[in-house]
Amino acid sequence: MDIISISQFDIVYNAFSFAIAGMGAATLFLWLERSQVAPQYRTALTISGLVTAIATYHYIRIFNSWDGAYEVVGNTISVTGQAFNHAYRYVDWLLTVPLLLIELILVMGLSRKETYSKSLWFGVMAALMVILGYPGETATDISTKLVWWTLGMIPFVYLVYQLFVGLSASIQSQPAEIKSLIVTARWIIVATWCFYPIVYILPLLGFEGSSAMVGVQVGYTIADLLAKAVFGIYIYFIVVRKSESVKG
Amino acid sequence: MDIISISQFDIVYNAFSFAIAGMGAATLFLWLERSQVAPQYRTALTISGLVTAIATYHYIRIFNSWDGAYEVVGNTISVTGQAFNHAYRYVDWLLTVPLLLIELILVMGLSRKETYSKSLWFGVMAALMVILGYPGETATDISTKLVWWTLGMIPFVYLVYQLFVGLSASIQSQPAEIKSLIVTARWIIVATWCFYPIVYILPLLGFEGSSAMVGVQVGYTIADLLAKAVFGIYIYFIVVRKSESVKG
Repeated sequence: MDIISISQFDIVYNAFSFAIAGMGAATLFLWLERSQVAPQYRTALTISGLVTAIATYHYIRIFNSWDGAYEVVGNTISVTGQAFNHAYRYVDWLLTVPLLLIELILVMGLSRKETYSKSLWFGVMAALMVILGYPGETATDISTKLVWWTLGMIPFVYLVYQLFVGLSASIQSQPAEIKSLIVTARWIIVATWCFYPIVYILPLLGFEGSSAMVGVQVGYTIADLLAKAVFGIYIYFIVVRKSESVKG
Repeated sequence: MDIISISQFDIVYNAFSFAIAGMGAATLFLWLERSQVAPQYRTALTISGLVTAIATYHYIRIFNSWDGAYEVVGNTISVTGQAFNHAYRYVDWLLTVPLLLIELILVMGLSRKETYSKSLWFGVMAALMVILGYPGETATDISTKLVWWTLGMIPFVYLVYQLFVGLSASIQSQPAEIKSLIVTARWIIVATWCFYPIVYILPLLGFEGSSAMVGVQVGYTIADLLAKAVFGIYIYFIVVRKSESVKG
């Protein structure tokens, strides 16, 4: 582990605790409000809450791993020799990124066949994106990092393309008052996703050592909160609006 | 405990954490979605979630047992002297394998008498299979391992035979759109079950020492995730489809 200052340690420590609170609160909100929406949209809220629940679990593990890697006594900070485990994030994304895309597909209310085929295909590509990213995250060598970053960008670009082109016919067929909400949900996915490849290559952009590590950890945490908790709440608003039109 | 490398330790550590997240998420999903299906199929989802809940508990124990068996400080790994507890897996299977078979029987919607007799008989044979496997798992001597493996294979082969022959009349009587789903569910059971006797005898196939141990632990974890979490979600899809035909 890099030697960092106490204030750098604290920033990351507090960011992780904030993530536990934010993800946990979003989970409880989404599941408690499940009964408030029309039955056909409840599965979308189950899955939205599942994404933030899985993230809550992993942020508790990440927090403990960070806390175990350093020891702060008075004005001195030292490394304990325990490694900070990077793998938690990737295990989390392997489960949550496919589920996030399934959330979006579920609120669109497509035919069963289309829901299945899109969920399966999006899910596989999202998992592939995460798996290809991992070897580069743990690599210390810059060229290895760059190779895996590039490989991971192939399913990334494919998914962004599909979100804009592959889904556009289905989005056009949505009721007028829902269409703009789904377009925004799609933008939230794409905008928050753009954080990840940038955070990933921060070390290659000249950020090195302790400031790079703090930047990467805080950056991923903010991106995760936007992509999971904020996106989940946004899905809730869409589902509430859709439920009203069912009743009406 | 065998001496292993840090990366071998990490692979097993992350596989166990992944199992906790995956089993836990499946449990929450199955229980939350319980209210979405027709009342007569809710017990199948209760039990599917129970299987993954029991597995979540045991993977937390297995994770802690693994973490306690080794100490990693900086670039060195050492054994602490605490044994890694193999019994957790067998206690888990003793409870979950009979329940998994009951899941399959419940979604078939047989008569009450047939449901009871098949559940009882399948459950007893599944428990016997697990009990006969345990002495061989902990044995270090190859011939002892082989004797118990062979004894455990007797109920194993009997159950596979029953799944294909004993259940075939009941499967034939299912509605057409459900039949192929149940046939696939049966294949998921048989295909994932085949992992276990293979993983069990890995040490006899020339895999020895640390790589055998890592192979056994990761192999069992993948097999468990497929047989419990993925199988449970598949049961959910069958039950959703059956509920629609009830309403229709």
